Amino acid sequence: MKQAKVRLYVEHPLGAGQTVPLNRDQAHYLFGVMRMGAGDPLLLFNGQDGEWLCTVAHAGKRGGELLCQEQTKPLQMPPDLWLIFAPIKKARTDFIVEKAAEMGAAQIMPVQTEFTNSDRIRQDRLQAHALEAAEQCGGTYVPVVHNLQKLDRLLSDWPQDRQLMFCDEAEVGSAKRLGAATGDKWAILIGPEGGFSPKERTRLHAHPQAHVVALGPRILRADTAAVAAMTVWQQMLGDWA
Amino acid sequence: MKQAKVRLYVEHPLGAGQTVPLNRDQAHYLFGVMRMGAGDPLLLFNGQDGEWLCTVAHAGKRGGELLCQEQTKPLQMPPDLWLIFAPIKKARTDFIVEKAAEMGAAQIMPVQTEFTNSDRIRQDRLQAHALEAAEQCGGTYVPVVHNLQKLDRLLSDWPQDRQLMFCDEAEVGSAKRLGAATGDKWAILIGPEGGFSPKERTRLHAHPQAHVVALGPRILRADTAAVAAMTVWQQMLGDWA
Repeated sequence: MKQAKVRLYVEHPLGAGQTVPLNRDQAHYLFGVMRMGAGDPLLLFNGQDGEWLCTVAHAGKRGGELLCQEQTKPLQMPPDLWLIFAPIKKARTDFIVEKAAEMGAAQIMPVQTEFTNSDRIRQDRLQAHALEAAEQCGGTYVPVVHNLQKLDRLLSDWPQDRQLMFCDEAEVGSAKRLGAATGDKWAILIGPEGGFSPKERTRLHAHPQAHVVALGPRILRADTAAVAAMTVWQQMLGDWA
Repeated sequence: MKQAKVRLYVEHPLGAGQTVPLNRDQAHYLFGVMRMGAGDPLLLFNGQDGEWLCTVAHAGKRGGELLCQEQTKPLQMPPDLWLIFAPIKKARTDFIVEKAAEMGAAQIMPVQTEFTNSDRIRQDRLQAHALEAAEQCGGTYVPVVHNLQKLDRLLSDWPQDRQLMFCDEAEVGSAKRLGAATGDKWAILIGPEGGFSPKERTRLHAHPQAHVVALGPRILRADTAAVAAMTVWQQMLGDWA
């Protein structure tokens, strides 16, 4: 068989002998754009059944059918990690969502802080970015992108069993201290471009589950800080070990 | 005095009582775009004399003069780290250069690999990106962006006293092993989107100063891998300690 060049997320059960119907958009992409035909292989995942090697059983203009052949990867859930960030310019917000999927965050939470300009996001567009990044990076899980919420509110409702890694450019905190924290539920909070407000900073420093971590001597943009913070966390506590 | 809101790189000596002449572009930016006037403060750095708080001594349409008041930061050289990467799409190449400056690479080296499509880069444009990133991140040094060269040639001329951290997605290598390496001259090599060729991979694995490091279980895009690899290195061997 030819090598699979396409990797797609589908909302359909996958399993030995299972057929998967294609909608019009999927058929257009596979048969129109990618020029695939009957018998050609591709990889599917659905966030639940791992990754499956499938073949085109029927190729049509407005639809089609795929047939599951064999599982190529089991389901690999990312660590129970939230990435919380304040949305910035469109392109950089898109990058943060893409990077969160590649780096293995389970949930992506845009928040409004006192110094955040944006008061709305396109949740559907960001979710689509996360899905594309999951297709591209070989993951078997698509992180959930939440709607915009207020940081203030999120902190008031904070779950007692979740640790918070908080990246404060005004502070010096060694990542090594993270290792001493207990529990496997975590969140990483990246500050907005204008930094946290004094009120927010006071509240975060007083937060019982907060761990302050510094990311080097230079000021990182929010998208750089997101990747750097997830690297620090994944290496120390996540699935990179 | 008002707080400095502008931070500029200039090619001129900085020191107590030193005046700094402005060219037409700089005068347009400060006085036209940023609406600054006589007496207003700004921060300057030149890659050699640290960061200086300066004030506008004379504001003109086609030029002007700044006066150095006091040093606000000493020169902080980044570690002796090269970031070597294969150029990809324009926007992502720009991001890699920006991120290298923020993360503290001293030299940025685009290379052609067997699976790289691009056969030219705009070195001047990428150098300007590095400069802007240095202005933004608070660094006092602008990393040097080199012209495109062949990876093959770079490896043939490799300096014997420089270690090479090589990120191979086909390999599993713990970053912890890096700590055992000696010497403070390093380079990080990020593979191209299509991966290294079998010939390149064989050569890299046989390289006497090479250290293979894996960046987690998912496949990272080149720009994500660049930030993640620099984070791993800076935390273990660089100026984040």
